[in-house]
Formats: sequence, C-alpha cells, structure tokens
Amino acid sequence: MKPIKLMNFVSGSWFEARDGVDAVQSAVTGQTVAELGSSGVDFARMAAYARSAGGPALRAMTFHDRARMLKGLAEAIIARKEELYALSAHTGATRTDGWIDIEGGAGTLFAYASKGRRELPNDTVLLDGPIEPLSKRGTFVGQHIFSSLHGVAIHINAFNFPCWGMLEKLGPAFLAGVPAIVKPASSTAYVTEACVRIMLDTGLLPDGALQLIVGSVGDLFDHLTCQDVVSFTGSAATAQKLQSHPVIARESVRFIAERDSLNATLLGPDCTPESPEFDLFVKEVIREMTTKAGQKCTAIRRTFVPASLIDAVEQAIAARLAKVVVGDPSVEGVTMGALVSERQLRDVRATIAELAKEARIVFGDPDTPPAENGAFMSPVLLRCDAPWASENVHDKEAFGPVSTLMPYADLPDAIALCNRGQGSLVMSVFTYDPAVASAVVTGAAAYHGRVLIVDRDCARESTGHGSPLPGLVHGGPGRAGGGEELGGIRGVHHYMQRSALQGSPRMLASVGHRWIVGAPTIDGAPHPFRLGFDTLEIGKSFTSAPRTITLDDIEHFAHFTGDTFYAHMDEDAAAANPFFPGRVAHGYLILSFAAGLFVDPAPGPVLANTGLDNLRFVKPVSPGDAIQVRLTAKSKSRRNEEYGEVRWDALVTNQDGETVATYELLTMNANEDQG
Amino acid sequence: MKPIKLMNFVSGSWFEARDGVDAVQSAVTGQTVAELGSSGVDFARMAAYARSAGGPALRAMTFHDRARMLKGLAEAIIARKEELYALSAHTGATRTDGWIDIEGGAGTLFAYASKGRRELPNDTVLLDGPIEPLSKRGTFVGQHIFSSLHGVAIHINAFNFPCWGMLEKLGPAFLAGVPAIVKPASSTAYVTEACVRIMLDTGLLPDGALQLIVGSVGDLFDHLTCQDVVSFTGSAATAQKLQSHPVIARESVRFIAERDSLNATLLGPDCTPESPEFDLFVKEVIREMTTKAGQKCTAIRRTFVPASLIDAVEQAIAARLAKVVVGDPSVEGVTMGALVSERQLRDVRATIAELAKEARIVFGDPDTPPAENGAFMSPVLLRCDAPWASENVHDKEAFGPVSTLMPYADLPDAIALCNRGQGSLVMSVFTYDPAVASAVVTGAAAYHGRVLIVDRDCARESTGHGSPLPGLVHGGPGRAGGGEELGGIRGVHHYMQRSALQGSPRMLASVGHRWIVGAPTIDGAPHPFRLGFDTLEIGKSFTSAPRTITLDDIEHFAHFTGDTFYAHMDEDAAAANPFFPGRVAHGYLILSFAAGLFVDPAPGPVLANTGLDNLRFVKPVSPGDAIQVRLTAKSKSRRNEEYGEVRWDALVTNQDGETVATYELLTMNANEDQG
Repeated sequence: MKPIKLMNFVSGSWFEARDGVDAVQSAVTGQTVAELGSSGVDFARMAAYARSAGGPALRAMTFHDRARMLKGLAEAIIARKEELYALSAHTGATRTDGWIDIEGGAGTLFAYASKGRRELPNDTVLLDGPIEPLSKRGTFVGQHIFSSLHGVAIHINAFNFPCWGMLEKLGPAFLAGVPAIVKPASSTAYVTEACVRIMLDTGLLPDGALQLIVGSVGDLFDHLTCQDVVSFTGSAATAQKLQSHPVIARESVRFIAERDSLNATLLGPDCTPESPEFDLFVKEVIREMTTKAGQKCTAIRRTFVPASLIDAVEQAIAARLAKVVVGDPSVEGVTMGALVSERQLRDVRATIAELAKEARIVFGDPDTPPAENGAFMSPVLLRCDAPWASENVHDKEAFGPVSTLMPYADLPDAIALCNRGQGSLVMSVFTYDPAVASAVVTGAAAYHGRVLIVDRDCARESTGHGSPLPGLVHGGPGRAGGGEELGGIRGVHHYMQRSALQGSPRMLASVGHRWIVGAPTIDGAPHPFRLGFDTLEIGKSFTSAPRTITLDDIEHFAHFTGDTFYAHMDEDAAAANPFFPGRVAHGYLILSFAAGLFVDPAPGPVLANTGLDNLRFVKPVSPGDAIQVRLTAKSKSRRNEEYGEVRWDALVTNQDGETVATYELLTMNANEDQG
Repeated sequence: MKPIKLMNFVSGSWFEARDGVDAVQSAVTGQTVAELGSSGVDFARMAAYARSAGGPALRAMTFHDRARMLKGLAEAIIARKEELYALSAHTGATRTDGWIDIEGGAGTLFAYASKGRRELPNDTVLLDGPIEPLSKRGTFVGQHIFSSLHGVAIHINAFNFPCWGMLEKLGPAFLAGVPAIVKPASSTAYVTEACVRIMLDTGLLPDGALQLIVGSVGDLFDHLTCQDVVSFTGSAATAQKLQSHPVIARESVRFIAERDSLNATLLGPDCTPESPEFDLFVKEVIREMTTKAGQKCTAIRRTFVPASLIDAVEQAIAARLAKVVVGDPSVEGVTMGALVSERQLRDVRATIAELAKEARIVFGDPDTPPAENGAFMSPVLLRCDAPWASENVHDKEAFGPVSTLMPYADLPDAIALCNRGQGSLVMSVFTYDPAVASAVVTGAAAYHGRVLIVDRDCARESTGHGSPLPGLVHGGPGRAGGGEELGGIRGVHHYMQRSALQGSPRMLASVGHRWIVGAPTIDGAPHPFRLGFDTLEIGKSFTSAPRTITLDDIEHFAHFTGDTFYAHMDEDAAAANPFFPGRVAHGYLILSFAAGLFVDPAPGPVLANTGLDNLRFVKPVSPGDAIQVRLTAKSKSRRNEEYGEVRWDALVTNQDGETVATYELLTMNANEDQG
C-alpha cells in the first residue's frame, strides 16, 4: 500500500508539511503506512485562530447546543467506523482493541452529549454550589460560577488509543466551549487524522474549534496564555519536559498530565484458591496483560497476592497465558496483536531486562517472538519474591504485555506495597470482605486515582481494571501525573474558570439567570400557572390567601392517612417532645394545604408536579395557626419542543410572618400559553 | 526594645538557628525588632516527622474532631489577641489593619470550624457526588470520594498578613487532615511566630501537625513527594522559581500559587456623578489604596472609568486622598500606617517611576514622605489617558498605596482593559444595571477569580473589593498564579485526593458508610423507628403493608386540601394530559398515605420528620392502584449529645412492583433506644 500523506489542519485548511517528513511503519508488517510532519506550520497563528474564531463561536453556543454537536460527531464516527477499523489494524490492534478505541471513543462523546443535556443548563454559564450568604440582612450574597476559558486546549495524546485518547479530551473541552488543537503520537497518527477528517466532514464544528498537528508542536508553547490548557498523555519524561517550559509557570497555564503508572492489583487476604474472587483475579490479570498487547496506561503492572497463594496464582496465570494466541490480528483465532512498533518492542524488552534483575521470568520469553515481521511479543509474567528489597518493579514500566507477580505478608503490607508505586491511575482489590475493601480505601485511595473493588456480586457487570469511564475521573497522583480527566462534568470544569461573584440578590439573580431570595419578584395577575414555559418570567410570583389549620383538620388528616404519630394526637406526649410546643400539624398536611392554596385547577400550561427538593420544616404549626404560601418561578429548563421543567421557590409562612417550611417545587410546563 | 530571637518549631521542639541570623526592622521606627534564621534545621526530618506523626494523628480524627480543634485554636487566638496587636504595630499596621489580620484570621478558622461541623460528615472520608450507575442490572456502581493526602502541606506566606495568611491556609489543611509546615515572610515573621506559639500552647494540635520555619526553607523541596502540597503566596518571580524546582514536576507535587495581580475596578457606563454608585466607587478606591497602606494582593491597582467622567473621578478621589493622615499607627487620628520596610518603600517608589513613564501622578509625591523614621509614604494616584498604548500600567504592580486611573471608551473596551491584566484575583464593577453586570461576568469572569458587583442595594453590607472571604474562592488565573484557596469546603479538597471507587453496592455502601440501592438491608422486627440514633444500623429497613387508593380517597383529599387540579378531578381533561392515563392521585396524597403506612405512632426515638429531599414522582397512581412503601436507613449524622439526623431512603411502589415515587426522608432521632 502507498503511504498516506498525513496533513495538518491549521487555521481552517489542510496543510502538508514542507519538508522533514517522518515515516510511520505498520506494527504488523513493518512497512511504511504513513508520512507526517508539521514543518511550515505557523503555530502562533494557529493558536490565535482558535482563540479568535473557534472560542467565540463555541462560547456563543449553549451547553445544550454543544452537547448536540458532540452527539452529531459521535454519530458520524459510528457511521464511518469501518474506515477507522481498517486503519487501526495497522497499529497491531485486534478488533476488540479497536472497539475500545473507536466505539469507546465515540461512546465517550455520546456520554458527554447526554450529560451535557441532562446535567448542564441550556445556558453558557454554569453555577457552582448554592448561594453563599455573606451578610446579616441578606443584601449582599455570593455565588460561584464556571465560565468558559477564552483560550485554546492543547491536547497531546499517546499512541495507544488514537481515537479514544483524542475524543475523551475533546468531549469535555468542546462541552466547556473551548476550541482544541490536537497533537497525536506519530506512530498511530494516521488513525487520528482519519477521525479528525470524519468530524470535520460533518460541518458541525465551528471554524477554529478543532485543529490538528500531525508533526511536532514547534514553538506552540511560546504562545500560550493564562486562558489556555495543556492536556498531555504520555511518558513522564516528556511530561516533565513540557511542564518545565518557562511559559507554563510564567503564565500559570493549566497543565494536566497523565503519565506512567505502575498500577497494582491485590488479591485480598480473605481469598483462597476456592474463592470466586481468586478466579476473577486471575482472569483480570490475563485480560490486562493481553488487551492492546498490554499497551494501556491503566494495565496491571504489579500483581500482589498473599504469600501463601503465590505458587497457586502463578500456576493459574501461566496456564491461562499459555492459551493466548499472539499474531496478526486479522488472522482467525489470534487473541493478542502486536506492539505498536519495533521501537516499542525494543523498549519493552529493555525494561523487562531491568525488571529481571530483581524478578525472574516465570512465563514467556521476550526475546523469542513468533517468527513473523512486525512488533510481536509473547506475554511475559515475572515473579519477584522480595518486593521490599526491589526498586525497579515499583519504578519501571514495561509498556507491553508484562506484569510482575509479588507476595505480601498481610493487608497493611499489601497496602504499603501498592502505595510504593508513588501514585497510580488505578488499583484493584479482589475481595468479598467489606473490611478489606474499607482498609484498602482508607490506606491507599490517596495514592490512586481509581480503586476498583471486584467481588462475585459485581464481576459479571464490572467494566474491569483497565477501563476509564466517562463518568469517573481518570488520572492519578504522583507518577501518574497528578492530573484528572473525565469524571463526568468534573472534566468540563478543567476547561472553565471558577469565579466567585458577589453582589446584591438582584444582580446575582440576573447574572445567574435564576431567581434567588431577596431578588425582585413579578407580582399580580395572571396566576403564574397560566403562563406557558416560554412566557413565564423568572421571578414571577404568587402569594396565596391564608388558611387556618384547625385541630379538626389535624385529627381528620391523621385518621384519613393513618399517620397518627403522637405529636399530632396527644397533647402531653407532644409537649414532652423537644421540638414541639404541643400537638402540631403534620408536615404533609402543611404541604397538602399549601398545594391547595397555590393550585390553579383548570387545564393550563402546568402539566404536572413532578417532584420536590430541599424541603425543610422550619417551625411547627399549632392548631389555630394560619399558613400562607408564596411561590416564585426560580429557574427553567427546556426538555423538548413541547414542554420544560420549572423550578419554583416555595415559602410557607404563618400568621406572624415566620417561616414554617421552605422547598423547591418542580413542575412540567407546556411551552404555549393557555388561558 | 531588645530584638526577639525567633525560633523554628521543628520535629516537636523549638530550635534556634545556629548562625547566619538576619535582623528584621520595625516599619515604624526602623529599629531591629527580631532576629531569625533556620540554619541547622534538618528539613528532611521535619517533613518526615509531619508525615509519620502529624498526618496519622490528624487522619485518625474525624472532620468534626478537626473542626472542634480549629475552633479551639481560634478561641485561643482571640483570647490572646492583644499580644498579636502589640507585635503587629511594628509592621506599620493600624489597628484596623491588625484587625483584618488577627481577628480576620481567627474568623477564618471559626468559619472552617463551623463549615466542618455543618457541611462535612463525622467521618474521615468525604463522598463526592452521587452514586454513578455503571451497569444495567445495578450490580456494579461508582462513587467518587476524597481522602486525606498522606503528606505535608508547605505553606509559604507573604509579609502583609502574618496571621491571616497563615490561618487561611491552615484551616482547610487541618480540616482535611493534613499537617503543615509554615514558612512566613521574614519582615513580619515575629507576628506569625507568636501566633504559632499561641496555637501550640493550646495543646490541641497533635504532635507534628504544625511546624514552623522562620528562616529559609533550605533543601525542603528536595524531599517533597506526590502526597505533599505547596501553597505559596508572594511575588511571581519567587513563585516561578519554586514551581520550577525539578521535584515539583517529577513527583507531580501540587503547587498552589497566589502571586501578583493587577486588580481592576470599573465604574459602569450607566453611572453619572449623581449615581449612588459613583460615590461608592470613589470610596472603595480610597479604601483599597490606604488599607494596609495598599499592601494587599487584592488591592485596586487599575481604576477604569468612562472617559467622560475621568476628570470628575480624579477630583473626587484626590479630594478624599487629601484627608488621609499618614503616620505612626499608634498616634491618634492616623488613618494610614507605614509600608512594611524601607526596602518595600524603595521597591514601591521604583515601580511608581516605571508607571510614571506612561502615566502622570495626579495626587501625592512618593519621594516626599512625612518627616519621620520608618517606611512612610503618601498615597499616590496616577492617571494614564492612553491605556491601550501603555504596558507598565497593566504589568507592573506597585505594592503600596498606589493606583492608576484610566479612561475607557465603552463597555467592551472596559472589559478588554480589565482582562489585559492577564489574570487577577479580583475585579469589581460599580453599576446599577444588571445588563452591565451580566456583560462583565460573561466577558471577564474567565480572567478574574472573584468579581464584585457593587450597587446601592448591597453597598452597606458589602465586604468590599479587597476582602477574601472563607466561603468564596480566593485566587485567580494567569498572573495571579492560577491557584485557588478557601471557597469553603472547596479549599479542603486541595489537601485531599479524589478517587473514583467502583464495585458492588454492598462494597461501596460499606466503604462510604451509608446505604445505597442494591446493598443488603436489615429486615424484620423491630420497626426501625423503635431504634435510637446510636443503635440504628445503616441498612435497617421497613416494608409497609399495601394500601389501595380509591377514587373516593382522591376526591376526599381534593376537597379537604383544596387541591382540585383537573388531573385529579376530571377524567377527560386528565386523559388529555400527556403524562396521565386519566384521573390520578395527588402526589401529596401518595406522600401522606406513605407516611401513614410507615409511621409508628407511639413516642419513641424518632422525634420529628424534619425534611425531605429529592422527591420524584416517577409513575402516576390511578384509582384502584395499591401503594406500598419501603424505608431504609441510609445515613446518620450526629447533631449533639441528645439526638442526630437520620436520612432514610423511601421507595413507593405499586401493586406491580413499579416505582411510583422515590425520596429521602429526614428525621431527628434521640440517641437512646426507647421501647
């Protein structure tokens, strides 16, 4: 096949490198697949284009608009996935490996599209946390918000997941309203470039939202500002080099790194060879060693087992490894493909040699690959019987189908050994004892970005040790880079600035697009339930007539509902209760009467009361008290063309103006006004 | 007065520097106040002591224990505040300046004590966000948690607030369970050292929780690990130097910086000299120039006004500045004290000279201080009529009583000028027009950590441009360092690691100390309402008998409560509603009947139903449907010796086992069991 000439997508057009082009080889055949370079790219202009074109266009869209855009991009990738699978085969990936990368990548965009619609407002500003009271009389309050950074996200990705690795960063960045410049690793950049073309072909992306550098990033870092974000995935050495660029510290550029990680797994001290968790453990180690030929930043590198079980575990793992079929992924029956390149193969072999100074190889021979071209290697299991006397096993990552089996003495020892990796992306523990799980979390969570607890109850549905998920944070402390990605909307925050706003309720209500206590209300006719979703203004308010609650009402309600709790029925017992002056009205009676006071019975835009939040009963209501309710439209969230959800602030007071209860009411409102 | 020999508090004892001691002068008299140094300190041992003694002791305490400790520390500082005021006078601070530092510092600890008790659990692990569903059948779920870092917090503080600057960092760190090593700026270290002594004297701090370095930090950075946090406040140059230490990038040490900031204020385009906001603006500029002699990282350095008003504003500010009395703070009538040192005075004068290349001084003479010893200087107002043609005014911070007045053309111009500071801690806007406030937030929030909106409604209670508050984030992007402090519990997160847990509901319930859907329940007698707070086990559950809801019930409830909404009363109209099959039961009827089904009427440990959260009506209930409710103890939170709050998971189902409604119920339960 003729090599693909990869191109950069720069300032709105495709650009081929002038000279200095590098060749990229197929992992399977060793032949050149692609050529790439970025000489001649004007990196300063590229960053400026993202900031001046892509940023404003994305920021003009709401979170819901951006979510819809992500969905369209994901759909396009799925529709053209076979183009990507065909290219992915050259990287040494099996179909399963490719599925993780391609469909897993699109799935991440789908997940962000869904979260963007469900968890974010149809707005451009995101409120963070509740109103902070800052004054006694309530005329001065605070509110945190997230707003989109005005810069560009620089995404520097690893070779192992050329689609997913790009998309898991683009999803949060685009949802945050920030344009991106993607720089894939050379060895699989041809898959990334094809995926970028698919996304650009949709026409859904505003100009400048997505640019691509297939070669080096040149002097791009010289042009970074305080509004930019660098998100790097790759080796610790490269991460440190980039992080030390003087502009990073000078401009306080956000730098998110995901780097080496000596991930550990732990067979709990409660397990025996008969425990279901023993088998689950062995299978997981195999899976992590062989999926993607072990080239996953989340793969298990350190395998800790009770000292008494190490022989049994070794035998069980070796027996299963013997069934792994290494070879060309396109050949039927092959279960593990190639490493990404000959160079990667050399690196892995060299690291195994380092590990073998402290550990012995108990399965596989790294120097005797199957007799084929390409970067093939047998899975290799090492065993180190003195983990505390060893350094390399906790420090050097063989980024291939390699893991080291080690014994531990007891649970504290196991936890300390896991932590000796000095920070990892993920650790797992296989146990059926909640006390073991708790001890691991207490002792080790501070060192690991994700902690997977596998037992017989969850194993069937477990997504496994090595799978980052869009809803969970991905990243870890220390060696793992100290960064965080994904984690649902948490990942969107990485591309936004949190600011504390302070001001009067009127101002903060206006800025935040929702009514808050102390802000002006819109009173008088019509009843707000007569107004359709679109017409209803935030702050529109209704104050009911008062209604006296009698002892008869309380008795009647008690017998009708069956709620004959003594505080409603027995004067002496109620008075002995520390919270009540004597018999009091049921909380649900107050709520029910309040509804009777504010409801507008005839058909109208309010379709249903769908829920209620943050109800607090503040002051008891005694027989003879008169309650009154005030309802104020607090915020709105459109659901579809027909209707949207309205959140109402509800305040129930008594005849003395004291607050009896506060809550937020949810209604579903039709969009059109009805009389 | 004889100089105070400041000591380091190292590995559990006071330690005097061996040699190389520096002298610190009084800002007011120029005489030596203190001598300090840290030669001979074993910094590696110091860090190890914090990790091996202080960390485990703090982590063994719950958030509530730590909150009580903070309260005790704050009380001790208030009890001995006059000792600190006496020392503070040597720094050039007025009593008001000292109040911000000393009582403001104690107030920050009080605020964290209060937030720790109210907003955090009586536990050592902090849950972050809801359960993440990760599987179809619900056997595999996720939960984010924060756990205490196992390292030490290195707090390197600025000279201007020797107490507050320390305490605003210690509060969050201690609440997070992380020990600290404090390194104050030399010029005011004698105040910090005294405050540390007061805290140590309480005996409330575990060994190793708090250590002090009064001299240089030596080789401390060489010993940092992935579990440590550096929080720096000071100049950009020092911050960059520290951040570039190779260990920071190598170990991914968290580095929080709060550095220079060219904070801006903006008089809105809606204002005239007659607007109340005009006067408020002028007063605020004066206050920010003179409080602490302008030595505040949050002070207003750039003052933007509509071009048409610049002369009026200049005159108003100058008139008020003329009334400022500079001098020895101990003298009656003095309203502005000294700069902290002669060196600081020289620096400020030099920076004013730089600014004066682009701006002219319109009030004050930096080179003609009052004829006294000490670091006194007149406030200086500069005016720059061409802010876009100038660099220094947006780039060079005169850390003293100095601000530059500049005109803007229109609101977009004003916003762009504010942002030209390339990241600041705070900006303020004086306006009564919500559209102006919204435009400022949309256009500028990404560049500023705090945005204060001042108007006539909030001015009286406003805490002002320059005041960081414990509940609001303090920090800003870019030039301001990119860091974040305070912000309530957000500040506690900076000293904790977020990890994603995955596992079965049983495991995650156990680890998180609360019941979740899918986890085992404890069924059978006794009724859970018979169990006291202490005895009640998480997971204890009660399933009610079913109750059929009749059309009579619905009609009866409607007429009793007044809630005659058509969906309950009119078959045809209800059936026309997109959500209902025909007439349905009121949501509040379902809630009320559910309470009747689960209530246990006789006096017992359950004292009151205090609230309800997250109620969602999932499926309508038609006449003839039978509802049933299941209540499960979800979590507990002790309030005092007598009682605590219990959160119950409530699930209402129909005769087909379908979910009708879900909510969380709150009750207050007495601690002792009652029959």
